[in-house]
Amino acid sequence: MPEIRRDPISGQLVIIAAERSRRPEALAGAVGPGRCGSLPSYVENCPFCAGNERMTPRELLALGRGTAAADAAGWRVRVVPNKYPAVVPQQERERDFRAASQPACGAHEVIIESPEHNRHPGSLPPRQMELVLEAYWRRERALAQKRCLRYVQIFRNYRREAGASIEHPHSQLIALPFVPPAVRLEMESAHRAYLEEGSCPFCRMLEETNACGERVVLNGGAYTALIPYAARSPFETWILPRRHEASFFETAAAGRAELALFLGKLFRMLARALGDYPYNYYLHTAPLRSAPLPHYHWHLELIPRAGVEGGFEMSSGIYINTMRPEEAAAYLREKGRAEDESWREDLFHPGPAQSPACGQPG
Amino acid sequence: MPEIRRDPISGQLVIIAAERSRRPEALAGAVGPGRCGSLPSYVENCPFCAGNERMTPRELLALGRGTAAADAAGWRVRVVPNKYPAVVPQQERERDFRAASQPACGAHEVIIESPEHNRHPGSLPPRQMELVLEAYWRRERALAQKRCLRYVQIFRNYRREAGASIEHPHSQLIALPFVPPAVRLEMESAHRAYLEEGSCPFCRMLEETNACGERVVLNGGAYTALIPYAARSPFETWILPRRHEASFFETAAAGRAELALFLGKLFRMLARALGDYPYNYYLHTAPLRSAPLPHYHWHLELIPRAGVEGGFEMSSGIYINTMRPEEAAAYLREKGRAEDESWREDLFHPGPAQSPACGQPG
Repeated sequence: MPEIRRDPISGQLVIIAAERSRRPEALAGAVGPGRCGSLPSYVENCPFCAGNERMTPRELLALGRGTAAADAAGWRVRVVPNKYPAVVPQQERERDFRAASQPACGAHEVIIESPEHNRHPGSLPPRQMELVLEAYWRRERALAQKRCLRYVQIFRNYRREAGASIEHPHSQLIALPFVPPAVRLEMESAHRAYLEEGSCPFCRMLEETNACGERVVLNGGAYTALIPYAARSPFETWILPRRHEASFFETAAAGRAELALFLGKLFRMLARALGDYPYNYYLHTAPLRSAPLPHYHWHLELIPRAGVEGGFEMSSGIYINTMRPEEAAAYLREKGRAEDESWREDLFHPGPAQSPACGQPG
Repeated sequence: MPEIRRDPISGQLVIIAAERSRRPEALAGAVGPGRCGSLPSYVENCPFCAGNERMTPRELLALGRGTAAADAAGWRVRVVPNKYPAVVPQQERERDFRAASQPACGAHEVIIESPEHNRHPGSLPPRQMELVLEAYWRRERALAQKRCLRYVQIFRNYRREAGASIEHPHSQLIALPFVPPAVRLEMESAHRAYLEEGSCPFCRMLEETNACGERVVLNGGAYTALIPYAARSPFETWILPRRHEASFFETAAAGRAELALFLGKLFRMLARALGDYPYNYYLHTAPLRSAPLPHYHWHLELIPRAGVEGGFEMSSGIYINTMRPEEAAAYLREKGRAEDESWREDLFHPGPAQSPACGQPG
């Protein structure tokens, strides 16, 4: 029997229509795991590969290169402006964003996650993932200095089916002069809940989800990965710090190191359960220069892509999820399990290019 | 220079980043026109083909069969329950939809648009399209009798890239016990505009768009097709009656006949300009059993699918459109033009199956 669920924080409506789907195995898709391993580590015309630094605009940040010159090889994570920006930097001034049209002031940057072409978040060594998180953190700090900007949206598209146009591992960042509507709605709703109940609704959600355990995907130290009660698609997974923290950018270096380990475990778990799945993840966090907020709680939302959004979702604003979140979480826990959860290089075997890539060039 | 636009009615934010795109010709895609013509008119295992009526649940409506028995051939448009419903009928009773979870009461139906497998809206004769609209109209009338239902959402997915899982031409209908959030937001916003300005904001938009003409795609008698000011994707097109009408279901038979002609012209125009494009369309109309509303105006939103929604759209609720709506409309007017706009059967040549289909089987 289909069921309508309402997300307790955002109010988002979801129809859980499990009868429409086949078993989780079928949804998990035919894509085999680890196709990245069959790509070469260097591609001559890839603008993000080490050695091709001249093919990008001048870098904004490089980690791991030491004292060598900018825009040369030797970096481990590199941030450059997007060559085809959705928004562009502007002179700092107060602007009125209630008006119907404005120039799109902001910044659009690419975080190149590895010098190697054939890595992806599941195959990055923990220290490399930590550098990626550090790059997010440093760019947010830098952009927070620009008073005209109000929000930094960090997101990642993995594989063409999830919107990636370049296969080299990279995240993106779009800085905006306002809080984007989806985040604002979530914050307003969390604020109302806080006023009513006197505690952060995300903290409450974590507590309840962990007490019951049914929708928990992974728990490790300071972080929890869970499938939300009103998940929009079968394996939608949220990663949250267990302690209240409104902004990811309050997270200190030790926290980022722990998060890097946790994300690595989670990505490998998802890869074992779902194969080389296309996905998006993005960070929801407090706006730039916020004081610590008692009602908001940063989190990563990770959405493995299953199928195409159709006319119903577009017209109604209601998602149809073909798998009960409790069943999806049990599947991930069961199929994602491994004897040894620690990262080893031999989990990942780069070899010669053979097959279509993870994240197609385009 | 990218530009941020806000839809004057819904408030939806869109970044118009035309520099990110190639020319309209490139966006219009490599798909050739009229691949439906290379499909057979009958497919043995298609549940929607004439002659295969036993493969569907019992029909709810058939048009054109006359007095012959139900669930037999001879129909021209046929409506059946969806075999894998997202929502299911329930006993009529008052229910509290503020609670977090409910059984998904409602109806999920399929409107089979033609007995022939290889038609699509652009290749339906006007009289056939009129029957499709009549079927929408009749089902809405029937479902309006059920007091527990509040909204009928009609939508169409064309081709697999737009979410269609069956290639035989069909629309769908999902009836819900509440007004879906996207429609509610639009109505609330239109209501506020009406209170402030004393007129329907859609009527105002039509007037302004027609006065300037830049974003008009097609005008014909009682209907206008236009690209909205803050279109979410390059060729998003809205079809509206020029006279104020809150509900599509106020439209009389003569209006439906005229709309059928208009839609046929528009679909052929889009096919000439864009080829055999995947798209969705859906109807936004007043809720069931509404009195005539002065602030709302029914319309069809038609979204040709260009590319995949990525992490930014999902995280922020902001769309990035890579083509200026004014440029997109000019392109459709220019490339969609034909000497003779009237429908002729020889516009459409069914032949033997040869190539991958429009709307893949799945």
